[in-house]
Amino acid sequence: MHKSLVSLPTFIKTLPALIFLIAASTVSAAEYFTIEDGELQRPTGYREWVYVGTPVTPDELNDGKAAFPEFHNVYIDPESWAHWKVTGEFREGTILIKELVAVGSKAAVSGNGYFQGDFVGLEATIKSAEYFPNEPGNWAYYSFSTPDLETLTTTAEQMPTASCNSCHDASASDDFVFTQYYPVLRAGKGTGPAATGGVLSSLIMGR
Amino acid sequence: MHKSLVSLPTFIKTLPALIFLIAASTVSAAEYFTIEDGELQRPTGYREWVYVGTPVTPDELNDGKAAFPEFHNVYIDPESWAHWKVTGEFREGTILIKELVAVGSKAAVSGNGYFQGDFVGLEATIKSAEYFPNEPGNWAYYSFSTPDLETLTTTAEQMPTASCNSCHDASASDDFVFTQYYPVLRAGKGTGPAATGGVLSSLIMGR
Repeated sequence: MHKSLVSLPTFIKTLPALIFLIAASTVSAAEYFTIEDGELQRPTGYREWVYVGTPVTPDELNDGKAAFPEFHNVYIDPESWAHWKVTGEFREGTILIKELVAVGSKAAVSGNGYFQGDFVGLEATIKSAEYFPNEPGNWAYYSFSTPDLETLTTTAEQMPTASCNSCHDASASDDFVFTQYYPVLRAGKGTGPAATGGVLSSLIMGR
Repeated sequence: MHKSLVSLPTFIKTLPALIFLIAASTVSAAEYFTIEDGELQRPTGYREWVYVGTPVTPDELNDGKAAFPEFHNVYIDPESWAHWKVTGEFREGTILIKELVAVGSKAAVSGNGYFQGDFVGLEATIKSAEYFPNEPGNWAYYSFSTPDLETLTTTAEQMPTASCNSCHDASASDDFVFTQYYPVLRAGKGTGPAATGGVLSSLIMGR
């Protein structure tokens, strides 16, 4: 009688982990962007992707002329989020969206501060060795914003590398992404189901 | 020969709208919360729901003692979002999550401002005529936050009506919800697929 390498009870015990690994590795490689003739087509549906964080750097805290006077609501596409949860890495084909939101009200019944007003712009960054083999970290940057703050372009050309990537290279915490300001990414890095919120009683994860 | 009420070409033209209405009305009524023995069980997975907006009312803009010194990242459950997109109303069984995030850094390469630090708390509000027939607007409020800012409770009792609902009643724009500060809800109210972002070139929607 031959002896199996793994006993049946051991096999059963490791089954959930095995299923998880197989499910993670067979995830389809759908991309959430389209590049045609070298231009990124404006992404859609991103408000139903996974939100990762919002910084605000208003004019009055920056001598009246902030480089980025709006709130930046940042999203990651769902499949890259699923990959991030398991591996803690940005997969080939990751797209992050930065939706620009004007500072609206500065006072409410809850106190003085900054409250989100109108949508005023849209930017995106994509990591792809296939499309951007020569960009640092394989990240490229795009803007669909227009000066009137009321319309978006339909397509966007890749921004010059130096205009975005140099700051990201110098200051972003994790693979050119400012994860230090995005608590959902920070706490969720490689933490599996706990990344989705509310699973653990402890909030220490990611500190 | 009998005459049909609608001509075939007219029927074909209205088909997409019909399919949309049928799809919208047959949405299942899944709920994203569990109330047991009068207590709300801590929701999970909300970071994968639909994000609607973030206000911040920091201490230093409120004489050092803000009522809400954190960022508030607000989410709506996916099914209530689907309903909101089509009808512009909060359905029976809507749950909104408010994840509290400490102000972290106040300066970055992008400028001076407010950047999201650590998760420090979790609150929720639910609209249900079934569970809260006597609450104004049928909304009830819950908090899983703890004073140590490092842990969450597993369950939460309903807050006294006056502690939350009075401000919401007096100042919130739409059915006790502060939609005036949540651009995703404001722009998405009853706008169908356009609510998901990037579909239209115009950003005027919801202003």
